[in-house]
Amino acid sequence: MPSNGGWLLALSVAALTVNTIGAATSERTERNCSVTPPYLPSTAVNTTIRLQELREHMLPMNISAYIIPGTDAHLSEYIAPRDARVAFMTGFTGSAGSVVVTQTKASLWTDSRYWVQAERQMDCNWDLETDFSIGSVAEWLIAEVPPGGEIGFDPFLFSLKTHNDYSLNLEFSNRSLRSIPINLVDRVWKDRPSIRPDSLTRLPDRVIQRSWQIKVDDIRTQMKEDLYEPTALLLSALDESAWLFNMRGNDIPYNPFFYSYTLLTMDEIWLFVHMNRVTDDLKEYLNASCDGALCVQLKSYDSVLDHVKQYVATPGVKVWIGTEYTNYALYEIITPQDKLMTSTYSPVLMAKAVKDETEQRILRDAHIRDAVAVVQLLMWLEKVVPNGKETELSAAEYVNHARSKQKDNRGPSFETISASGPNAALAHYSPTNDTSRKLTVDEMYLVDSGGQYLDGTTDITRTVHWGNPTALQKEAFTRVLMGNIEISRTIFPTGTRGVNMEMLGRRALWELGLNYGHGTGHGVGNYFGVHEWPVGFQSNNIPFRAGMFTSIEPGFYKENDFGIRIEDVVVIVPVDTKYGHNYLTFDTVSLVPYDRKLIDTSLLSSEQLQWLNRYYETIRRLLVPELDSQGLHEEKKWVLTNTEPFIHSGSSATTTFSSSLTIFLLGITVLHNYNIGLMYNILNKV
Amino acid sequence: MPSNGGWLLALSVAALTVNTIGAATSERTERNCSVTPPYLPSTAVNTTIRLQELREHMLPMNISAYIIPGTDAHLSEYIAPRDARVAFMTGFTGSAGSVVVTQTKASLWTDSRYWVQAERQMDCNWDLETDFSIGSVAEWLIAEVPPGGEIGFDPFLFSLKTHNDYSLNLEFSNRSLRSIPINLVDRVWKDRPSIRPDSLTRLPDRVIQRSWQIKVDDIRTQMKEDLYEPTALLLSALDESAWLFNMRGNDIPYNPFFYSYTLLTMDEIWLFVHMNRVTDDLKEYLNASCDGALCVQLKSYDSVLDHVKQYVATPGVKVWIGTEYTNYALYEIITPQDKLMTSTYSPVLMAKAVKDETEQRILRDAHIRDAVAVVQLLMWLEKVVPNGKETELSAAEYVNHARSKQKDNRGPSFETISASGPNAALAHYSPTNDTSRKLTVDEMYLVDSGGQYLDGTTDITRTVHWGNPTALQKEAFTRVLMGNIEISRTIFPTGTRGVNMEMLGRRALWELGLNYGHGTGHGVGNYFGVHEWPVGFQSNNIPFRAGMFTSIEPGFYKENDFGIRIEDVVVIVPVDTKYGHNYLTFDTVSLVPYDRKLIDTSLLSSEQLQWLNRYYETIRRLLVPELDSQGLHEEKKWVLTNTEPFIHSGSSATTTFSSSLTIFLLGITVLHNYNIGLMYNILNKV
Repeated sequence: MPSNGGWLLALSVAALTVNTIGAATSERTERNCSVTPPYLPSTAVNTTIRLQELREHMLPMNISAYIIPGTDAHLSEYIAPRDARVAFMTGFTGSAGSVVVTQTKASLWTDSRYWVQAERQMDCNWDLETDFSIGSVAEWLIAEVPPGGEIGFDPFLFSLKTHNDYSLNLEFSNRSLRSIPINLVDRVWKDRPSIRPDSLTRLPDRVIQRSWQIKVDDIRTQMKEDLYEPTALLLSALDESAWLFNMRGNDIPYNPFFYSYTLLTMDEIWLFVHMNRVTDDLKEYLNASCDGALCVQLKSYDSVLDHVKQYVATPGVKVWIGTEYTNYALYEIITPQDKLMTSTYSPVLMAKAVKDETEQRILRDAHIRDAVAVVQLLMWLEKVVPNGKETELSAAEYVNHARSKQKDNRGPSFETISASGPNAALAHYSPTNDTSRKLTVDEMYLVDSGGQYLDGTTDITRTVHWGNPTALQKEAFTRVLMGNIEISRTIFPTGTRGVNMEMLGRRALWELGLNYGHGTGHGVGNYFGVHEWPVGFQSNNIPFRAGMFTSIEPGFYKENDFGIRIEDVVVIVPVDTKYGHNYLTFDTVSLVPYDRKLIDTSLLSSEQLQWLNRYYETIRRLLVPELDSQGLHEEKKWVLTNTEPFIHSGSSATTTFSSSLTIFLLGITVLHNYNIGLMYNILNKV
Repeated sequence: MPSNGGWLLALSVAALTVNTIGAATSERTERNCSVTPPYLPSTAVNTTIRLQELREHMLPMNISAYIIPGTDAHLSEYIAPRDARVAFMTGFTGSAGSVVVTQTKASLWTDSRYWVQAERQMDCNWDLETDFSIGSVAEWLIAEVPPGGEIGFDPFLFSLKTHNDYSLNLEFSNRSLRSIPINLVDRVWKDRPSIRPDSLTRLPDRVIQRSWQIKVDDIRTQMKEDLYEPTALLLSALDESAWLFNMRGNDIPYNPFFYSYTLLTMDEIWLFVHMNRVTDDLKEYLNASCDGALCVQLKSYDSVLDHVKQYVATPGVKVWIGTEYTNYALYEIITPQDKLMTSTYSPVLMAKAVKDETEQRILRDAHIRDAVAVVQLLMWLEKVVPNGKETELSAAEYVNHARSKQKDNRGPSFETISASGPNAALAHYSPTNDTSRKLTVDEMYLVDSGGQYLDGTTDITRTVHWGNPTALQKEAFTRVLMGNIEISRTIFPTGTRGVNMEMLGRRALWELGLNYGHGTGHGVGNYFGVHEWPVGFQSNNIPFRAGMFTSIEPGFYKENDFGIRIEDVVVIVPVDTKYGHNYLTFDTVSLVPYDRKLIDTSLLSSEQLQWLNRYYETIRRLLVPELDSQGLHEEKKWVLTNTEPFIHSGSSATTTFSSSLTIFLLGITVLHNYNIGLMYNILNKV
């Protein structure tokens, strides 16, 4: 699933405008606030009363504006319904958005993936701001808040980094931030969902290489060796505590997380959770009845502030926090400054980013079973779409169901994106009863889906056409594929950053003046988040090292027409080179063939074609035995047909050259790049 | 000329170690501090007394350590002899280095380009630290300075950014910085060179499109339109004032800069210079006798602090500074904080980065004349090297002289790098009487040189072999060239950052496990610095826009053996694409052919070969008329011979396929990339 890569394309803005105006004459799906009375589609939410109530709560605080970020106290990317304050206030349910409210104005910021959705869901109380950045919000604040004015925020919903970014942007403006520890939206939100009562769980031993005791030891060693001599580590991100203790929960849809904080010192461990959710078994597993160095002392979730305050009052302590995932409320109480030590990410997030051998093996395994489900979907659609009865929704249900039949499945890893024709041009669209299109042989279809398995999290996108694609569709698809391949086959030194190579995913599109408005890939977890930062291709992601998993997912979107995305998960592996050491490349672990009909092989270089044929060999080698063992004969036949090797084909005028050319080119390539061949041999043995 | 790109290769570290040990048995050129008594080469400088004196001056200040950065009060990359405090203290004369001295230790940090040089020039009072980063210096400080200790620095030699970086790194360590406005090195430095008395000059009208009045108006407009409402702009970098007033000086070797600051408000302009250097003509040019909005009030250079202080004391003012090029001494006096506004770079540096039409035209022109000089060098070397009498030094002198004969030349733009065999493996080596090697047909030769011309600054590197290159030399050269071509031919959207595409310069090398340890390119100026930031491929460079000039200069260095670098200057130009707008590409303005003998065309893709042939056509089209007009017939013949189009050749076993293959590949390429062809047509009309 694509993440926002900070790209906001002028193309999309233009298309959005045209769209809004063009649709004004007939049934429009987006609001129109420039007519009297304003036109609101049925999907818009009336927010007048809640907004009025929020403004009333703002008045006694003496703040000129109130910022509502779209996150929770753990700075989660995906949030529980009880934390969906932006959605409650605005009606907009997209996964990325920030809101600012003054006494007279109310604005939502979101990225290009969601602009159309926002226009469909918001009423005319709200302005949509399209530059989704703290700089843009700050600019708006400077225009709307009078000099000397204060801007309120809930410190639990700001990371230290977010606070710093706002402060820097407001630095010279004579407007300042004010931390308000009571959330004003929650005061207005009468039927706010409560916390789930479900028990927490531990992972079975078969999916674990390192026990929580070993992990705690490793982290303590890092603390000991650190120059700044921290005495404690405070963990705030939900996957930090879950990873450290090999535990999972289900507080966040699609994410097996549970509300928690951890304070780890050299000789004590405090885990802050909702205590009633910890079973006796789990207490035993955590050694919860003692208070030694390897005993996890359970404390109530809400007591974290008090405990940290108390710890910080001890002389000589120094608390290590990650600035990206620690909320400002916790940061505020760690004073004076010499009690604090920061890094961008906690050592737990850094350790988690590199999978151990077991994690690598089981994550690869999960992808084999996951491919079975996706193959079943694609095969089924091929058969049934011509009958004209299937929809985006029924396709999504089919693949979700197919996954649920696979071993160790724990549901989808995000809401399935099943999008046909123009709906696929909305990069993060998921079908609803209102929007679901019928699938036809005349439109392209994009399905971006993933599963949670006890042994891993998957995420894969395939785009197909069951009829006759247009020249542009085929050209764009091939160039998106070229982007995927160019990244996948690249050899690079350890420590290269994804952001410094992600242009390889765009380059073949750029040649035609095409591009895409989202990131090129994100880390994935072992039964964790489907966007597992800080691994990936974004500018704030950490350098690549062997053992990291990331998606690679270039795309192309033609507004109101079609959308293309090709997404695979890859693992970063060492590669032998002729002269150097410490070089890496990507090994694709997603195992589903691409739609042959959409590939114009004449555009591919011989290296790209070779890569593709090797990938298809890998699919056959790994997926076919799984299909055999599951007794799926038809699926096996489908996979074999769809992974036939490609022969390089020129345009019709040059066909006679093509086979000797292929042989010739393959010859050259083998001659000069035999180390790449060697690499694949190594990979194939994994 | 390459700049430090923050790359420190493990390869180089290993090679350096081997080097040091391996040479111990015979005459060694590097110091050996592990023997008793220490071995010092004749190039080492005895620093015992000056170090002792510095430590004596540190004592009354009560500081545990003193930082000596390698820059001047304007944060210049190149500095005048009087600012070479690192060289004075350590003996090390490389262009990048920082020093820290305590009462018992003294360390120099420099990057991989200079490690060998430092080992040759320093005595055993000094430790060499190889991780040239503020993080590494801070780590060292934490280890050497006791808790609570203070670390002194001269605030004129720290940028605001440098200060912030040190502060961040020392943040949790209980060690702090102390600004000491009197430079302690200067107290020790008895024969410190004085300021040059030369008069400043103005540029002739023929090289100017925008008068200084127009530039001042443009900058004031930006100030007016800025959200934060600055009332003044303070310019500290030497090229800021020089650019704004279309003036030049010669305070810094190879750089036509003069010591200056500017304080620009909406209705006044103060230029701080050494007043005795401003002629009456120049005073008239600057309207120096009035005090209106377009009158430049001249103030003495040393009075800048007082004047800024006085201005800041005025109610309601706000001073805009760039954090990269404003020294901490100036920043310190702009208080309280609401009197200050910062951006990374000043609006002057941002405006200067994009050349206007005149600047583009004359900078291209300067490169045509510059190519004549480089062609003369290469042609001459081809003839004379077999005679065995020429050296690195005589070659450097030859090219410097050849440039001096070209119209509007104002000397070299940096010390010519003329390096043969192993000397070329030191990326920034310049020959001296001690080190200069004889040129032979058995070794590779690298020449990196550039000129200052009234109309532009040039910088070009060519690597040649006059005999039989080894397979590795040819392979590495071809892959360096592939890197240069891959960047040059890339089409990308406006606003793409260089750092996000510079891997294209390394990719062909990475495939073999090879790499290089410097940046991939830097901006160049119009009769300005040869490294003109913030344009280029480094991580702190600004996004590319049409009208910027940058070098592209991948390389490869085999320690103790040979060095390869291919450097061209390019201008960023708009390009038509099939579907998109606002796409850019590079147009190469350096016009010297590469050594054909070193190019293995079988490694090149058809696109790369096409690019190369088009580039050679451009050289012929632009350079030959210049050679004609200068009556240089032999040079013309040499250029024509060396720009013959290449035919794609396979390996010997496949030769029979090669010509039909070439035709076939060209056919495909023309078919699919006709927009690239279109682009070149457009470029060729410029």
